[in-house]
Amino acid sequence: MEKEGSMSLVVVGSVALDSIESPHGCVENVLGGSAVHFSLAAALFTKVRLTGFIGEDFPPEHVALLRDRGIDLTGLHAKPGKTFRWKGRYHEDMNLRETLAIELNVFGEYEPEVPADYRDSQFVFLANGSPEHQLHVMDQMTAAQFAVVDTMDHWIRSSLPVLETLFKRVQGVVVNDGEARLLTGKDGIAAAQAILDMGPEYVIVKKGEHGAIMVGHGETFLIPAFPLADVRDPTGAGDTFAGGMMGCLASAGAVTPANLRRAIAYGTVIASYNVEDFGVRRTVSLTLADVERRLEAFRHMVMF
Amino acid sequence: MEKEGSMSLVVVGSVALDSIESPHGCVENVLGGSAVHFSLAAALFTKVRLTGFIGEDFPPEHVALLRDRGIDLTGLHAKPGKTFRWKGRYHEDMNLRETLAIELNVFGEYEPEVPADYRDSQFVFLANGSPEHQLHVMDQMTAAQFAVVDTMDHWIRSSLPVLETLFKRVQGVVVNDGEARLLTGKDGIAAAQAILDMGPEYVIVKKGEHGAIMVGHGETFLIPAFPLADVRDPTGAGDTFAGGMMGCLASAGAVTPANLRRAIAYGTVIASYNVEDFGVRRTVSLTLADVERRLEAFRHMVMF
Repeated sequence: MEKEGSMSLVVVGSVALDSIESPHGCVENVLGGSAVHFSLAAALFTKVRLTGFIGEDFPPEHVALLRDRGIDLTGLHAKPGKTFRWKGRYHEDMNLRETLAIELNVFGEYEPEVPADYRDSQFVFLANGSPEHQLHVMDQMTAAQFAVVDTMDHWIRSSLPVLETLFKRVQGVVVNDGEARLLTGKDGIAAAQAILDMGPEYVIVKKGEHGAIMVGHGETFLIPAFPLADVRDPTGAGDTFAGGMMGCLASAGAVTPANLRRAIAYGTVIASYNVEDFGVRRTVSLTLADVERRLEAFRHMVMF
Repeated sequence: MEKEGSMSLVVVGSVALDSIESPHGCVENVLGGSAVHFSLAAALFTKVRLTGFIGEDFPPEHVALLRDRGIDLTGLHAKPGKTFRWKGRYHEDMNLRETLAIELNVFGEYEPEVPADYRDSQFVFLANGSPEHQLHVMDQMTAAQFAVVDTMDHWIRSSLPVLETLFKRVQGVVVNDGEARLLTGKDGIAAAQAILDMGPEYVIVKKGEHGAIMVGHGETFLIPAFPLADVRDPTGAGDTFAGGMMGCLASAGAVTPANLRRAIAYGTVIASYNVEDFGVRRTVSLTLADVERRLEAFRHMVMF
């Protein structure tokens, strides 16, 4: 599965059991979590090293599914207690997510430990989590060349100084437009530029159905979202986007503005599949050939 | 100014004196109106035939400015009474426009009459106005090949049946995302497709800072907005976009999906200039060379 020149990729994040309601239906206790959505997307390109916690209630078939996709589960630590659970609801406007219940369980009880075998990974994705834990992960990595951090409003409000330290330690920051506004008091390209001034080399602002902006190395990249008539479940779209992007980059082996543009386009397309069905249902059935086909259609849609 | 193969272009819309407040300042009684913003953008490509009404209070220097840009003013009818006036305010979120005062004056009192010399025009833009008046204009045109209509929430709510008749008479519909939702009950690409089902060949949905979508002839075209750190006055952005698009198309002489994509890109770029300053201040100082330069930078921003 790994190409010559490809770099190893580690992700640290949540492994969850999600219960989701949307106008298109509902599911209970399905496989989810940032590290899962990320890994399933990245696994289309490269072997991913997953780090996360599961409880005693985690169904073994989920472990088997991840293993079948070639994901390295050395860092998937089983702990006494229950798996992280999230319950949420989407309304007609899918941009508005309502969290109905959240049980951190084992995800809230342990500091992430990166297995010794993972520590020389060159590509690192720190999925949304406590900035202290994210810094702790960076301290364990010995050869990181391209580390990217995601965060959310909660951490921006509660741990901004730690986040600012972290932004100087990583090469990339991925946030959504609301988080970018909260971080900088600005919008759009001005927000992205202001985050760039906080330390990273590249900043990617995700705008949901409106696509994404990337700035860095004197470049600006604008990409729409792949247009979909029906979105059934947006859960995990951001992590799937990041997984596609990081998997593609790690597989390419070098981070250049051109490779990053291409990687963001792949991430956009894989995320567009992810939201077509609940949980990881659509992503697990994807092949790289499916993705390439939609990417070509997408490329035609943006040409002028 | 006209290229070989270029087609004649007529616009019917408002000529106004606008008073505008934004966090960046305010102006009083400046030149505005849909037909003006449209014509100044289209004039970068071709000779535009303007149709509209002015009152006795309309400053002669505004007429001179339009004439200097090569705009055909045969259809600019001076009537007893006052010119259409609009007063509006923008807040920090420039997407929210507050109308403080509106005086239709001569714009509300007369049915648009297209001068005999204009009636053989192949390209027609019906700027926002009463659908009855827009239909009346179409009745006067003898050789229209590509007629495009703009509208707004007020007409969708009050005159939907007439609008539906009109949509079957024109080749293109341009609306913003809110209007598309109001027309169809759908969002994004689904809304654009639903309007396409109402009769036109092409539908363009403008999404402000998020760009635009075009559907038609089996194609989907997605374009982001040109990124700007500062927007001083969004007034007229939509009409400037339409003017750039229609001017570029009329100059090309043929409406093909490829020409339309290129024309929409030009419209996007010219609109990005328009919002950098109040009223038409930035647009009147533009040259086609400025536009080409920004278009090339823009093209690089969307490539992957």
